[in-house]
Amino acid sequence: MKAYKDMTKEELMALKEELTKMFEDAKGKGLKLNMARGLPSAEQLDMEADFFNTLNPSSQFKSEAGIDCRNYGELVGIAEARKLMGDMMEVPADNVFVFGNSSLNVMYDTVCRSMIHGVCGSTPWCKLDKVKFLTPVPGYDRHFAITEQFGIEMINIPMHADGPDMDLVEKYVNSDPAVKGIWCVPKYSNPQGITYSEEVCKRMAGLKPAAEDFRIFWDNAYTIHHLYEDKQDQLPEILELCEKAGNPDMVYKFCSTSKVTFPGSGIAAMAASKKNLEFIKSIITIQTIGHDKLNQLRHVRYFKDFEGMKNHMKKHAAILRPKFELVLKRLDEELTPIGVGEWTKPVGGYFVSFQAPNGCAKKIVAMCKEAGVTLTGAGATYPYKKDPDDSNIRIAPTFPPIEELAQALDIFTLCVKLASVEKLLETA
Amino acid sequence: MKAYKDMTKEELMALKEELTKMFEDAKGKGLKLNMARGLPSAEQLDMEADFFNTLNPSSQFKSEAGIDCRNYGELVGIAEARKLMGDMMEVPADNVFVFGNSSLNVMYDTVCRSMIHGVCGSTPWCKLDKVKFLTPVPGYDRHFAITEQFGIEMINIPMHADGPDMDLVEKYVNSDPAVKGIWCVPKYSNPQGITYSEEVCKRMAGLKPAAEDFRIFWDNAYTIHHLYEDKQDQLPEILELCEKAGNPDMVYKFCSTSKVTFPGSGIAAMAASKKNLEFIKSIITIQTIGHDKLNQLRHVRYFKDFEGMKNHMKKHAAILRPKFELVLKRLDEELTPIGVGEWTKPVGGYFVSFQAPNGCAKKIVAMCKEAGVTLTGAGATYPYKKDPDDSNIRIAPTFPPIEELAQALDIFTLCVKLASVEKLLETA
Repeated sequence: MKAYKDMTKEELMALKEELTKMFEDAKGKGLKLNMARGLPSAEQLDMEADFFNTLNPSSQFKSEAGIDCRNYGELVGIAEARKLMGDMMEVPADNVFVFGNSSLNVMYDTVCRSMIHGVCGSTPWCKLDKVKFLTPVPGYDRHFAITEQFGIEMINIPMHADGPDMDLVEKYVNSDPAVKGIWCVPKYSNPQGITYSEEVCKRMAGLKPAAEDFRIFWDNAYTIHHLYEDKQDQLPEILELCEKAGNPDMVYKFCSTSKVTFPGSGIAAMAASKKNLEFIKSIITIQTIGHDKLNQLRHVRYFKDFEGMKNHMKKHAAILRPKFELVLKRLDEELTPIGVGEWTKPVGGYFVSFQAPNGCAKKIVAMCKEAGVTLTGAGATYPYKKDPDDSNIRIAPTFPPIEELAQALDIFTLCVKLASVEKLLETA
Repeated sequence: MKAYKDMTKEELMALKEELTKMFEDAKGKGLKLNMARGLPSAEQLDMEADFFNTLNPSSQFKSEAGIDCRNYGELVGIAEARKLMGDMMEVPADNVFVFGNSSLNVMYDTVCRSMIHGVCGSTPWCKLDKVKFLTPVPGYDRHFAITEQFGIEMINIPMHADGPDMDLVEKYVNSDPAVKGIWCVPKYSNPQGITYSEEVCKRMAGLKPAAEDFRIFWDNAYTIHHLYEDKQDQLPEILELCEKAGNPDMVYKFCSTSKVTFPGSGIAAMAASKKNLEFIKSIITIQTIGHDKLNQLRHVRYFKDFEGMKNHMKKHAAILRPKFELVLKRLDEELTPIGVGEWTKPVGGYFVSFQAPNGCAKKIVAMCKEAGVTLTGAGATYPYKKDPDDSNIRIAPTFPPIEELAQALDIFTLCVKLASVEKLLETA
């Protein structure tokens, strides 16, 4: 097989005709497949049936400290849930606030709180002329949607193989007091599956922000979401790094069990310095009396401890691994020989990131849709949904059963080929 | 027994000596009793053990519409949960948004959202010089704490036996565009147990607000929390009244199962016009992917339908009724003969409201504390904790076992007597 870029116009035209025919055939199949969102599959959820035995009519509902988890109280979470989530987040329980069912909600509320009440006594952001966040790209669409909704200006920072471009991050954070935050998914990042290197983390912790109320939003969503036993990325613990660098209050770390137990029915947590937690608690104590302690108790008793949680993640990995391997295999088989596209090869997380030839992403996603395969919208991985190169596509292989995933990948690679040929023909 | 007000100075002094001795005795007992907060008792919670059987490993986790409740989705709640909460709130399911574990959190977020994003397109409240809320008093401390935290000025409206003083409410709402809301607990109100009359509700629905973004915050927390089968207050349905009065968007209704199933582990809901819900949804869709649908499913399957929920409430009533009756009996026995204090006689809700002689509430609460009985802080039922008469005390009889409640009432009535005598002696 010849690389597309080396083909003559005639060869490309013949190829286009052939691929178009295949595309029409595919459309005729009436498929309905979904590679759009990072959902666990039914197989993963079924594997957790015992979770529903954790609390039963004969259970004791008292926490270890004697708190009746069926009643009000314990705003920051019961001690054993703080311990479990603390172990997951690699910080002491004292630095952990356990919330409800969604870390996204916690992050949203954290931005919202800063808008209204400021950060540990700083001017509320809504009183400022301009608030800016740094957004490593490609990144998580729902992060960008939060900052967009609050009218916060986003400044794109290119992602490299070891994390965000730290020269740029330092330039903006250390010089511009309007820069109040940066969104980070530091491990098995969404969508690239990149883990920030030790050097990147150290430079992050060593920032000298022009704004005293600058905070790193460290969304460690995939901290224990490995695909392999023997190939696992390591991420330095950022609270400790920040403290060592003299910036103990500069980071909020977020985490949840959404992809450990159940999306929407897990527990979420934030880790931060005690100063940050005290301030946050002083505001949240008016917002709610407390979160769902019965669900905290379910999680603690289901896993017993962090070892139990890590063992549980191996079962998820066993289901997810073949799906990721299939994606990489099919992309490699279909696209490497023709020299089209680039993609990441993550060893954890929920996504594979695909770079189509510039100007082709929207077209590929639209074509896939025509043929019955839903992908994350092209551009979604950029603020305001604007991918300047129209190149990035997020592949989410976790949800469909593997047979459907295979079908979807056939369509995807076909559409990538056809769009690429058409693109080459434009300038041929 | 003689009324205190008819006693001579000498009689009062002798009485003071006697009561002081009793108070010192009481202090010596080292009691630790709590009548402070509206918590269900362990007996009520134990009665719900079967709730923990509702979902088990062999359950089906699909909603009636085929949604897998273990996975992401359904921002407004699963259809059957909207139906159940709609029945509870006396509105169609289409007007219901089901949230997480706390209606207080929903109310907080509703105020917060209005601060940042305005109301259905109005100017965000944080951009206005002044925002005011009307606060019927005495009322619910956590409502007042929300408006206080957002810097919203509160204007006290006296409560009458049939609800807030509507002449005053109309005067403020219809003339002042800075008045953006009113806090209402319209049924078995906190703390008085008053239910708004039909006339009050009609006048409320017929308001002609000077502000287009004025909203009634109708916290129907105790809608099915009756104490008796044969004595139940009736409250008109406010969404319908507002619609009939040409104000379909003027009200948000809030509700939860916190005191139906479990405080902190129930489900909360809001009912509003479709226009309001659409706007709210457009904001919340960025805040979270969805609430805990498994807990929604637990509730729906546990109760089956609203009839099931109402039947369940009879079991709560059976536990609570003797406690309320004991409170009223002891107050009547101890205080009616001496002509001290006034109190409400609610047939539902979670509280009895006590009016001490002016200037005595703080003293009584402090004395009770000395003797080992914790009461809601005096003043807590007023914005900024300022009861101008220093008179109102909220009695929360639900949590302690009935023997402890009896002991606490002995202390309480003793402290009321002693404080009243001391007060009379000041001017004797």
